[in-house]
Amino acid sequence: MRLFFAMAYPEGLVDLIDNLHQQGVNEAVICPGSRNAPIMLAMVRHGGFRCYSISDERSAGFFGLGRALKTKRPVIICCTSGSAGLNFAPAVVEAFFQEIPLIVLTADRPAEWIGQWDGQTIYQENLFGKHVKHAESFKPFQPNQLVEKAMAFPQGPVHMNVPIAEPFYPTNGEALPQIREPQAIEAHKTPELDTDFQVKQGASLLITVGQRPFHQAENDFFAQLALNGIPVIGDATANLPAECQLHHDLIWANEVNLPSFQPEFHIHFGKSFVSKRIKQFLRTYKPTASWLVHPNPIGKPDPFQCLTRVVRAETISVLTSLCQQTLRGVSAVNSAKNRLEAIQEAYFKKESWSELAIYNHLIGTMDSPNSEVHVANSLAIRYINWTENTFTQSEVFSNRGTSGIDGCLSTAIGASQQTNKLVISLIGDVAFQYDRNALWNAYVGANVRIIIFNNSGGGIFGILDGAKDLPELDEFMVTKQVFRAKNTALDAGIDYFEAYDWNELHQQMQHFGEPSDRAKILEIFTDSAVNTQELQAYMRLFKQ
Amino acid sequence: MRLFFAMAYPEGLVDLIDNLHQQGVNEAVICPGSRNAPIMLAMVRHGGFRCYSISDERSAGFFGLGRALKTKRPVIICCTSGSAGLNFAPAVVEAFFQEIPLIVLTADRPAEWIGQWDGQTIYQENLFGKHVKHAESFKPFQPNQLVEKAMAFPQGPVHMNVPIAEPFYPTNGEALPQIREPQAIEAHKTPELDTDFQVKQGASLLITVGQRPFHQAENDFFAQLALNGIPVIGDATANLPAECQLHHDLIWANEVNLPSFQPEFHIHFGKSFVSKRIKQFLRTYKPTASWLVHPNPIGKPDPFQCLTRVVRAETISVLTSLCQQTLRGVSAVNSAKNRLEAIQEAYFKKESWSELAIYNHLIGTMDSPNSEVHVANSLAIRYINWTENTFTQSEVFSNRGTSGIDGCLSTAIGASQQTNKLVISLIGDVAFQYDRNALWNAYVGANVRIIIFNNSGGGIFGILDGAKDLPELDEFMVTKQVFRAKNTALDAGIDYFEAYDWNELHQQMQHFGEPSDRAKILEIFTDSAVNTQELQAYMRLFKQ
Repeated sequence: MRLFFAMAYPEGLVDLIDNLHQQGVNEAVICPGSRNAPIMLAMVRHGGFRCYSISDERSAGFFGLGRALKTKRPVIICCTSGSAGLNFAPAVVEAFFQEIPLIVLTADRPAEWIGQWDGQTIYQENLFGKHVKHAESFKPFQPNQLVEKAMAFPQGPVHMNVPIAEPFYPTNGEALPQIREPQAIEAHKTPELDTDFQVKQGASLLITVGQRPFHQAENDFFAQLALNGIPVIGDATANLPAECQLHHDLIWANEVNLPSFQPEFHIHFGKSFVSKRIKQFLRTYKPTASWLVHPNPIGKPDPFQCLTRVVRAETISVLTSLCQQTLRGVSAVNSAKNRLEAIQEAYFKKESWSELAIYNHLIGTMDSPNSEVHVANSLAIRYINWTENTFTQSEVFSNRGTSGIDGCLSTAIGASQQTNKLVISLIGDVAFQYDRNALWNAYVGANVRIIIFNNSGGGIFGILDGAKDLPELDEFMVTKQVFRAKNTALDAGIDYFEAYDWNELHQQMQHFGEPSDRAKILEIFTDSAVNTQELQAYMRLFKQ
Repeated sequence: MRLFFAMAYPEGLVDLIDNLHQQGVNEAVICPGSRNAPIMLAMVRHGGFRCYSISDERSAGFFGLGRALKTKRPVIICCTSGSAGLNFAPAVVEAFFQEIPLIVLTADRPAEWIGQWDGQTIYQENLFGKHVKHAESFKPFQPNQLVEKAMAFPQGPVHMNVPIAEPFYPTNGEALPQIREPQAIEAHKTPELDTDFQVKQGASLLITVGQRPFHQAENDFFAQLALNGIPVIGDATANLPAECQLHHDLIWANEVNLPSFQPEFHIHFGKSFVSKRIKQFLRTYKPTASWLVHPNPIGKPDPFQCLTRVVRAETISVLTSLCQQTLRGVSAVNSAKNRLEAIQEAYFKKESWSELAIYNHLIGTMDSPNSEVHVANSLAIRYINWTENTFTQSEVFSNRGTSGIDGCLSTAIGASQQTNKLVISLIGDVAFQYDRNALWNAYVGANVRIIIFNNSGGGIFGILDGAKDLPELDEFMVTKQVFRAKNTALDAGIDYFEAYDWNELHQQMQHFGEPSDRAKILEIFTDSAVNTQELQAYMRLFKQ
């Protein structure tokens, strides 16, 4: 007789989840809650999802971003109703600007309860505004566009708000409803692409590469262009091969050289760019033609303020064509590079106990195809553009979509799942403490290595022109902080090491990268004043 | 000659800040950043603002909420561009639904840089969507509506996005620009109010009181009504006097009684209500007339789904009128109350080591006009509705606008400034760890007392019907967590105590409330299974 009772479980949810799975989604980050428990059940009991349970939604969102970065598939992040969803927002906006597919499922009260002063009830429809590629409301047994919109170029986050009425759970012991007939699945639409990539003959060409994942075939082309004398400028986040390492932020530091660096033709690949110098250079010394290569950008992004054409194409197609053309580089850049390398070599011989020298040392030690590096905002990502050593074997990740410090560590922890590689987080003390809840879950794998640069506060402010002389600097910008990672490591069951000088650093690093059965933190303590001094002295070397 | 150079500082900012000050704003929470440094300078150098520097924007937002709760004035929260502002969102939405004035100032890139892949650049206009009462963009030397809109009923958060171009700072040693002529200030508009509050003669009346701050004059009227036999039902967050303590969540537990409790007339004061039982009761046993008293609500909030009239008035006006009318209560409620008190007394004599008994004990010990209590979501706020002892002297605060766990501790820390009262946070281990960055600043006063109920996870899920029998309960809902507050206390320089049984608790409590030169944490460890068992046994006593 029991079959005749309606089951206490929302209609159509198992079908939604199965539909997402059929379209290739197979991971979900679930934040504990009551209203979203039916969605949780549908995913956990489906069998086709790897599910993670993470309590702090802010951290969970970035963990999901880390998963999507690595799987290159949309990852579900799912939370309960109310302010929970807003804690996803920092990760959602990062995913939007970094063009990473995320599927956000927020449980909600039924529509009639919104604005009625019921608990955990906010206006969840379109919660993320312009920062998702697509938003819709759940309707049982109706087709959805989540995967299609998340995966179509530009990839990005999508949001489905899921109103759920009580009761939330199947009766004790009862199974979830059967999946009805599968819905038809729409294929991702590929935009129409350009085919003409002819650079003006004889024009001097400069290539910039913004943030992009490591890509061997593209890198082979980039290396070939560099060997042919074309300057290929990319930050560490561009993941370019060794042949393209130009130390552009140093070469461009000497303003006397800038007029001779002006190219006639400029092509930009990838997404956002860290180096302010290059952006300012191109904004001032505008090339005659400037292309942005992207299959389907939103609007007309023009970070260099000199855009003449959006080339709607895949990077590989444009590179293939470029390598078949006769091109001319900017010769002044190459000669400047040679001078620079001698200065760098001399400087780094002395090994002062400053962050710059420590970064340089660590990159030299840790660069390896068996590791990947997650570099935090705000100073960390800059240092690795300035050092002599560069990452050419480890893939470099960083939350440069919005450049926030709010989830750098969580992203790394997410990325560390399902891989045997060593996952290294390079992070300042402020970004670490801000996102310390990255370690407040069951997924901190033994392959995680966190290196914290503790200078007791927001070190970046001490090097900003103008800011560094303000009397308000220490209290309202640097914000001296005394928290140490040691106590978090105790809670999280992570091995903790510290270094106050080169001897200790060398000693700690001997075994730091070796396989172990627990994650490791190395906290490196430096003096902010010395860091600033050394960095300024170093930069001066390249300004003359 | 220097006077002829344009100063490197954005126009009109000092005027904006001075204008806000003239309208009564005198506190600002500032999150370190570069883009918002000019706003910081304008506030710090103005001289009329108490400024707080807090690094984690999520925590800073709730700290500001705590300040506004106490000062009853709008408090500025200010952050840099990019995802920083989104970390304010949980506090902003809580302020919106709790009707607390906040002025959110987000620094932004100039408009032409939005969508250009520049760093820390997102779509900041209308960042908070429907969850602010008002949003505008900064325009130099133009009047703004921030204070007016934040203070006009219903009070709430407002947002000004402030595009700022470089350079950000005055030249070394140079002062900020002089304030120009002060702008005219508009007075807050008072809505037109109702004057007729006549209850139908002879009708039985039930009063419910949602969240509201402590208010002596109103409480005198509420006490008078209760003494005259009118049931006045309020959760702990209603801050009602002792005369109104009805233990409604227990009285209403026995479904047999419900028909006899049905009132003909119902009036609701204050905002949202914790007790689901009362909401469900009124939704089922609908009164003939149901009023909601509010000077100017948004829409027609109807938490009880029986609303017949929005009475646009101040609470005190309606209460004054009610106390002059001849009214009749619901007699069955009063007789049920007497039976209940005997059962409670017997139960709490045995003192089992369970959260319920511990809450009861602590309330008995700590209720005092010299302390205020900040109760966290999600279990804490429920327990204090179930205990025999209730807070009638300590004012009770809780983030019940959206009922999130994301900033309960930060709100308490904000509220603890500028008061000699003991500020007590009652909080579970999950809410504590979630918002542990509340202690990551320089403002954790010696008057702060944090009592953590550590049951190793999200204890609330173990008592939810349906949820508690799911095989997924432990991994995906309770989310067992092993972090302890001890290690955070070490970082934050807070005295730490712990209790595993009654002996330890009594010993720790001997001096816990005494004045000291540092904040104190008491972490109480209980067994989740015992907590659930005891609570269920207790509830059964009232269901028969």
